[in-house]
Amino acid sequence: MNYFRPNIEAMAAYQPGEQPRVAKFIKLNTNENPYPPSSAVRRAIETVLDGGLVRYPDPAADVFRRRAAELHGVEPDWILCGNGSDDILTIVTRALVGERERMRMPYPSYILYETLADIQGAQYDPIPYEQDWSLGGTFTSGADDLKLAIIANPNSPSGTQIAPRQIAEFAERLPCPLLVDEAYVDFASADCISLVRENEKVMVARSLSKGYALAGIRFGYLIAQPPLIERFMKVKDSYNCNALAIAAATAAIDDRSWLAEMRTKVLATRTRLIERLRDVGLQVTDSEANFVWATQPELDLGRVYEQLKEMQVLVRYLGYPGWNEGLRISVGTDDQVDAFLNALGATLV
Amino acid sequence: MNYFRPNIEAMAAYQPGEQPRVAKFIKLNTNENPYPPSSAVRRAIETVLDGGLVRYPDPAADVFRRRAAELHGVEPDWILCGNGSDDILTIVTRALVGERERMRMPYPSYILYETLADIQGAQYDPIPYEQDWSLGGTFTSGADDLKLAIIANPNSPSGTQIAPRQIAEFAERLPCPLLVDEAYVDFASADCISLVRENEKVMVARSLSKGYALAGIRFGYLIAQPPLIERFMKVKDSYNCNALAIAAATAAIDDRSWLAEMRTKVLATRTRLIERLRDVGLQVTDSEANFVWATQPELDLGRVYEQLKEMQVLVRYLGYPGWNEGLRISVGTDDQVDAFLNALGATLV
Repeated sequence: MNYFRPNIEAMAAYQPGEQPRVAKFIKLNTNENPYPPSSAVRRAIETVLDGGLVRYPDPAADVFRRRAAELHGVEPDWILCGNGSDDILTIVTRALVGERERMRMPYPSYILYETLADIQGAQYDPIPYEQDWSLGGTFTSGADDLKLAIIANPNSPSGTQIAPRQIAEFAERLPCPLLVDEAYVDFASADCISLVRENEKVMVARSLSKGYALAGIRFGYLIAQPPLIERFMKVKDSYNCNALAIAAATAAIDDRSWLAEMRTKVLATRTRLIERLRDVGLQVTDSEANFVWATQPELDLGRVYEQLKEMQVLVRYLGYPGWNEGLRISVGTDDQVDAFLNALGATLV
Repeated sequence: MNYFRPNIEAMAAYQPGEQPRVAKFIKLNTNENPYPPSSAVRRAIETVLDGGLVRYPDPAADVFRRRAAELHGVEPDWILCGNGSDDILTIVTRALVGERERMRMPYPSYILYETLADIQGAQYDPIPYEQDWSLGGTFTSGADDLKLAIIANPNSPSGTQIAPRQIAEFAERLPCPLLVDEAYVDFASADCISLVRENEKVMVARSLSKGYALAGIRFGYLIAQPPLIERFMKVKDSYNCNALAIAAATAAIDDRSWLAEMRTKVLATRTRLIERLRDVGLQVTDSEANFVWATQPELDLGRVYEQLKEMQVLVRYLGYPGWNEGLRISVGTDDQVDAFLNALGATLV
């Protein structure tokens, strides 16, 4: 079996995340939204079903592009739609980064960025965050041969956000495009979309999975200047977005009051969760996302994770070699968070 | 703007196919099924909607893999699910073909194979079909440096099929995997699935878009030996299949009587369409697909295509440099085909 590219052979086997199909688990491990999506989503899907599924979907998903463009104050040709924001990240990487070329991303962050570099046969420089999750000038130093930089903003697992002004400075100094992955931005206090107009090197990726409670439909999009979008269009699969997903995503971004109400609830629960975790002695980073990052060097957090799982509460245990370890806990409903806190209390006695 | 890989810059701009959103067009240009999908599909989608879209879908789509494995007499780990069979083709190419490496495919065939080579920065050898759409020993000659060969079987635009025995011989002689793209096989008299067990180099791609009337949901799959599937899993996006699409595809392949009835109708209409086209003097290749390929050197077929379009009948005009030109006409309902034949008659007077 030596048919595969050496970079593919060298990759670790694929590890799907824990997605128990048993309803009784309290699932705070994959940052899904605890609330159902806007009711407009189901109506939009039913309308597509009434019209049938026989035809190919619109290749560019123009109905979504028009609405997203209005929302963000750009033109539709600034928008590229994807089968989840993972598809957007895949398209951007394939278009920009060749074999043995170089990508840069902070560490720790979303592991997919490194995986995409591996699939391309590219090199990458993970730049360590400072202990306070800030990112210094090293992110742009010695970067002449870079083809792509990616920053998750807010970041996972930390939930922290780099200020748009600093992102703009990074983009000025980098020789290559900077993809700002705003998968969690619907829970944050700032975003980087205005930077896209100021600098063609800034690109912003968005996801419908978290803020809009639509992880099941797979829809994400990119905002970038039209000459870049035009080139990415060459790389995407022709019909990369499902007809039901296009309709669902369009209905979802149109329902601004749903988003505002959901956000208010999640942010209130997040504040309470952070306070309670600090009360029991965990170190918790302030969060701009729908999850929190809790560490405590004096505790065996791998063991806490296992004990929580035995009590049917799933959170994410993440250990980063050369960095630290912690629990990433998604902000659920108030009831889910109370159940988690009770279970956690039982592990700490 | 010199951020992009040279192979991406060199590619022609993306050209979506003609998908008029006006219902009055008779659309026989993109080989969609003229009949609505099994009614089980909508029920399956409604069931997912009842459960909600908040969660990520199953990364491997195991519910589909189990049913497809039963259908084809293999185990679930012989199946890889994709966001349309285009996604399958993309995954396979990314896993096997590096920059400056080499792919091979017949010519004329599905243009995507060449596009995928271009995106990889790879080389490709289009091997011309003989005038009778057979493919000789040149397909496997001088092939030492090949990393992937792809044959659409049935082929587009011809609708012809290479016998499984000859495909097996190609696979024996090739140094690399041979992907048999069976997107149109539900309308054919043979398939190559039994070859996958005999030779690890044979892989078969399937689509739900044509035979199952589900172009809108984007679902396809690959049948290959488990060591290959395992490696392709590393390359796919983690959640590449939409939750609604997984349920729809599973319900669709379960409804064998729907498939049999649809096939009987399409094949009867195909026979009639071919006879009538020959009656009016067109040269039509026998077809194993849900479309037919009509040529006639004495006619200006580009002009016929334009005239049909003016009469709101869309077919596909395809010209292949160094080869010939023709009209590819999808097999619609009997009424659609009658309307096409009437319009065609008007262009020929």
